[in-house]
This record gives sequence, C-alpha cells and structure tokens, in this order.
Amino acid sequence: MFHAPGHVFYTSAKRASNIWRRTGVRRLTSDASDSRARIVFSGIQPTGIPHLGNFLGALQNWTKLQQKAHREDALLFAIVGWHSLTLPQNPQALQVARREMLAALLAVGLDPKRSIIFHQDENPHHTELAWILNCITPMGKLLRMTTWKARLAVAQNARHDSEVDESELNAGLFTYPVLQAADILAYRATHVPVGEDQKQHLELARDIAGIFNRTFKPLFPLPRYVATPTRRIASLKSPGTKMSKSSPDLASRILLTDTDAQIKSKIRGAITDSIQGITYDPLHRPGASNLLTILAACTGAEGAEGVAEMAKRYEDKGHGELKADVTEAVMELMRQPRSEFERLRGEIGYLAEVARDGAVRARERSEVTMREVRKLVGLV
Amino acid sequence: MFHAPGHVFYTSAKRASNIWRRTGVRRLTSDASDSRARIVFSGIQPTGIPHLGNFLGALQNWTKLQQKAHREDALLFAIVGWHSLTLPQNPQALQVARREMLAALLAVGLDPKRSIIFHQDENPHHTELAWILNCITPMGKLLRMTTWKARLAVAQNARHDSEVDESELNAGLFTYPVLQAADILAYRATHVPVGEDQKQHLELARDIAGIFNRTFKPLFPLPRYVATPTRRIASLKSPGTKMSKSSPDLASRILLTDTDAQIKSKIRGAITDSIQGITYDPLHRPGASNLLTILAACTGAEGAEGVAEMAKRYEDKGHGELKADVTEAVMELMRQPRSEFERLRGEIGYLAEVARDGAVRARERSEVTMREVRKLVGLV
Repeated sequence: MFHAPGHVFYTSAKRASNIWRRTGVRRLTSDASDSRARIVFSGIQPTGIPHLGNFLGALQNWTKLQQKAHREDALLFAIVGWHSLTLPQNPQALQVARREMLAALLAVGLDPKRSIIFHQDENPHHTELAWILNCITPMGKLLRMTTWKARLAVAQNARHDSEVDESELNAGLFTYPVLQAADILAYRATHVPVGEDQKQHLELARDIAGIFNRTFKPLFPLPRYVATPTRRIASLKSPGTKMSKSSPDLASRILLTDTDAQIKSKIRGAITDSIQGITYDPLHRPGASNLLTILAACTGAEGAEGVAEMAKRYEDKGHGELKADVTEAVMELMRQPRSEFERLRGEIGYLAEVARDGAVRARERSEVTMREVRKLVGLV
Repeated sequence: MFHAPGHVFYTSAKRASNIWRRTGVRRLTSDASDSRARIVFSGIQPTGIPHLGNFLGALQNWTKLQQKAHREDALLFAIVGWHSLTLPQNPQALQVARREMLAALLAVGLDPKRSIIFHQDENPHHTELAWILNCITPMGKLLRMTTWKARLAVAQNARHDSEVDESELNAGLFTYPVLQAADILAYRATHVPVGEDQKQHLELARDIAGIFNRTFKPLFPLPRYVATPTRRIASLKSPGTKMSKSSPDLASRILLTDTDAQIKSKIRGAITDSIQGITYDPLHRPGASNLLTILAACTGAEGAEGVAEMAKRYEDKGHGELKADVTEAVMELMRQPRSEFERLRGEIGYLAEVARDGAVRARERSEVTMREVRKLVGLV
C-alpha cells in the first residue's frame, strides 16, 4: 500500500528542521533558486470518509506541514488510486471514496494554491517510471519485503501473518513498493515522511534510486526518511486495536461526517474500566488511555509529555468528566472541517477542477524528470 | 520479452483464414461496422539493424500480412521499447536501434497510412493497463512462466537454463508477460500472431483477460493465438545455432545494410561440409540445409515443400553453385529494402513524424479501452 489514512506520511516542519540540524543540512531562507528547498511528497489511499484516527494521525498534520513549510518548499500530496487496486475494491465505492478523499484534504485546510494536490492515477508518469524502475529492481529485494503480508492480513482480517491466504497475492501487491518508489522519484522528492511500517519501502526507494544513479547518471536525490510522530488512536469499542474503517461496529469510530449528537453518543459509549481516577496506562487501561490521547491531540498537547500532563490533570477525576471533556474537544475540532467537508463533497464540478489543476501541475514537474529518464535509458 | 526480431509474431492472412474456418468464425466482407473485423496486434523489439533472419522470419511476413489483410482489419505494429529494458541495454545504441527499427519497418514495405506503426513507449496506456492487470494477476501464474529464464540465458550466452545467473532477474523481466498482456488488451486485439516460444504468454494474456471480464464486466475479447510458420535462419559460421545479433562474428550474419560485395563474401565464407551433392538434412548437414532454407525463402518457395523442392533441384550440384545462387537471391531480395532503409534512416524528421502520427492513432484506440477500464475498476 502507499498507506491508508491513519498512517502518517509527513512530518511537521519543526521536526524536519531538527533533522536538518542533525544531518548537517542547512536551509537557506530567501534565495528562490535555493537548491536545498525541500520537495516533500506524501500519498494517501482513497479509503472513504476519514475517521478521527485518520484526522489526528495524518490529515491534521499535513495541514500543519503546509502552514510551517518554507516558501521555496514544494509540497505534493497524492491520492494514490493505483495502490488501492492492489486489494479487491468495490468499484462504485472506490469512485466515491476517491472524490471524497480529495474533499477531505481540502476540508482540513490543504490549500490547492499552495500545495499540489492530485490523483496519482491522473499522471501517467507514475506507471511509466515504475516500469523503468521494475527493470532495475532485483527480484531478491522485493522478495524480502514483508509489507504485502501485513496488508493481506488486514484485508483478510487475519490476526497473524501466518494466517494469511497467500494465494491472494497478486503481482500488483508484490511490486507496489516499486510503484511507490516511482511516486517519490518522479518528483525527485527529497523528503518523504512515512510511518514506521513503511520505512522499509523508503529504504527500497533509496536503493532503487541509487541503482539508477549508478547505472545511468546521478539524477535522483536519495529521498530522506522523515520519521513521523504516529498518534495511534484506538477503537472506542475495543481499545486494544486501532480505530479502523474495517470494523463492523460503527460505534467504534468517529467519522468526519458525524453530527455532534453522534459524537456525544459514541464517546459516552466508549469502553473504559471501573478503576477509580484516571491514569495513562495503555496496556492495562487502554480505554482511558485512548481518551487521554484523543484529548491531548485535540487540544494540541504534543507528544508523550502532552499526554502525561493531561493524565495528571485528570488523576482525581472520573471517567464521566473525562468523556465530557473529550466530547467537547472532538466536537470543537471537527466542527469546521466537517462543515467544510459537507459543503465540498457535493461540489463535484469544483473538485474535478481542483483535481485537474493538480494533475497538470504534478505532470509538469514529473515531465522534467521523465525527459531526463528517457534520455538516460535510451528511449527517445 | 515481447520478442526480438526473428520471432515471428504474426500470421499470413491465408493462414489466419484457415484458422477461422477451423474455429467456425466467419468473416463478413463488406460491412464497415463488421464486428468480426480482426484487430491484429504484433510487437517487435528495437534490437538494431535487422539481419537476414529477422527479415525472412518476421518483417517480410508483416508486409505480406498487410497486403492480404481485409479492408476492415485493424493492424497495429509496435516497436516495444519498454520490453527491451528488461535486459541491460546500451542507452545510446538503444536510441539508434529504436529509430532504425522504425526505418526498417517502413523499408520492408509497411505502410503507415494503412497500418498503425508506433513506439509502445509513446503510449502511456500500456504501463497504466499493465498496472491494473498486475493487480488481478496471481503471482502463482507468473511464477510458472519460464520464458524469463530463456531470455536470461540468451543474454548471458548460457548454453542451458541451468547455467543462468538468476540474480540478474529483475521485477521487469519477471512481470513483462503482464505488460505484454496490456500491449494486446489495450487495443482489444482479437488476433495475436506469436512464435511457439511465446505461446504461454498469450495464454496468460487470455487468462488475465478472463479474470478481468469475470471480476468487472466482459470487456476484452480473448485474443486468439495464431501460430506462425517460423523460418529459422541459422548462423553462416556455426549453422547449428540461430543467426543472431549477439554473435561476435560479423561474418555469421547478413545485415539489411550489407553491400552486394559483403553479401557475396559472407555467403562465400559460409560453413558447409565436404559431402558431394546437396541434400536437406539440418541435423547432419546444417550449413547446406541453411543455404537451401535461405534460397527457398528468398524465392518465395513456401514451407517444407518449398525447401524439399529446392533440395531436389540441387541434389547433383556443388556447394559453389548453391552459394552463387543464394548470393544472387539474397542480393535481389535485399536491394530495394536496403536502399529504402539507407534513404529512410537519415530522414530523422520524417521518422519522428511517422512515430508521432502512429502514437496518436494508437492512443486514440487505447483511449477508448482505458475509459471503460477506469470506469469499471472505479478510478474515475
């Protein structure tokens, strides 16, 4: 997969600048021809209306990234439709999900004037470059990838990799890390924020870029792995597992489209425990801990410290009070994006226009790369 | 591979009509909307200036196919550049070979007004459809393909599959049968003439078309395997092996660009034997048999009977006389295509124009398919 929403594929600008400090890469500040301007690429699969976990885990952070990015940085956010085909899809549902994911990206504040927001499957350079990269990617490297197993496990609701029915492995799922490398390299992206689970794919993309550079001519910067703070929001009904679109229990997740009444009712019904007071202890008190995580995230309390602070504030309070505050915070956070989403999802013409414009701008960038690539491999 | 020149990927119209008779498919003759009009697709790899083996084995027969095709038949001939990348290439040489293969197709008489002659890598629908087909192609089916081994063996000059260094297997070489299926299905081709060695790939393409039709909606006709009479022209220097571009001995093959003097000298130096008289016995007298095959092919004596007749005519004659007649026949056959080729290979502007026009017409056709495909899989 590229990644389903919920896998965080970006970083905040603040964190990125720490990385530059550590790696000794200095950012210039005003020169428009600054060769050290970042090219940030990230992708998200069109899986339908985002839930709170997607929102806090990925979408909200993309918006922050956009706000904090340097003027010269290029930001590309792709809805990676080709990747979604690696598992069976309902075509009608996919068609809607593809459009609604675009509406969601806009609803959370991504600005199509600032960032290039586009459908991967509307830029043919992705599959063309993927083919070329396939031809320099040793099978051995792909055979060592393990992510397809995890992806099949999720799709098959298997509890463990050993339960996976491997006969469902298709050539797309097997080679999608190469398409992912093409997604990144087509734009000569320098920074690719990926979740921990996708780290091996970014390493493969770096490997492939290196093989290309050595075989032909140095063309691709090796894209940097930018670790991202993953906020794992758990299911409200079985807080030991991730909040997920595939759970049959609708009360286990809050959707971007939920009304205030629905949010209230779902949080009121969230599973907690009967221990007095609140502590942050994900292993023994997953329900209460999840509520603390959500509250911290909604109110901008960053990282482990933020959660710890939040726990301190509630140590003498009851679950009822915590739930009431979480409800308030979630309603407050979702209000604007929800109304934006509700407004935008019906604007079919506008969404098509944004998609068209994004695809044109994406193609303009990848065209420059592809002209070079074709010359180097001899297909001109 | 799609196939290097020399692998015959087409059929004569005569042979095809026998196949229709056998399979009960009747051809209508005058209705322009005739849904039974054939869509014939064939591809050739850009391997450089064709040699006599390519010429007699493939190119000449494409021209015949064009001459005999029905008015309503669509004929598509692709130079399959993407496939050539599955093995290491010299980019400069590939660039020239790609252009010169187009010049060669025109030089032997393919008419860009009648047939769609184009570079596969100039129509992005090939790799896009290949991705979609990858996602419905079980890995098990690809693992059963054996052709990549044969292709590696040729590239590595291995005498046997067991000598092949499999670490050179890349993801492109492994999945190229899927790209080949896309090449065919993008045009919803009905007839695909392939050499015996490619039969398993066409069966895979039929399998994949069937999976797509069952998963989504019937869209693809199952492309028919059209067996082609392969004329195996042997090396002039080691007549137990095929005439090949990869042999280091230049005297082992006659190129389309060879002068009369070069043709004379190469055939004079062809390895034969010291047995009196001429007989057709490929196993024990490969040199003489090869000359008979060439002579029969050059003079239009078709099939095994043609060669047998030719052998009869020379049974009391010597190798000298046979060689003299072969030389005459080859010079005669090559004269016009050679001069056409020499004229065309320098017409860079004209070739680019033909390629551009061919790509536009190919895309127009595949666009119709891809619109349907995208709708069916949900990426619209």
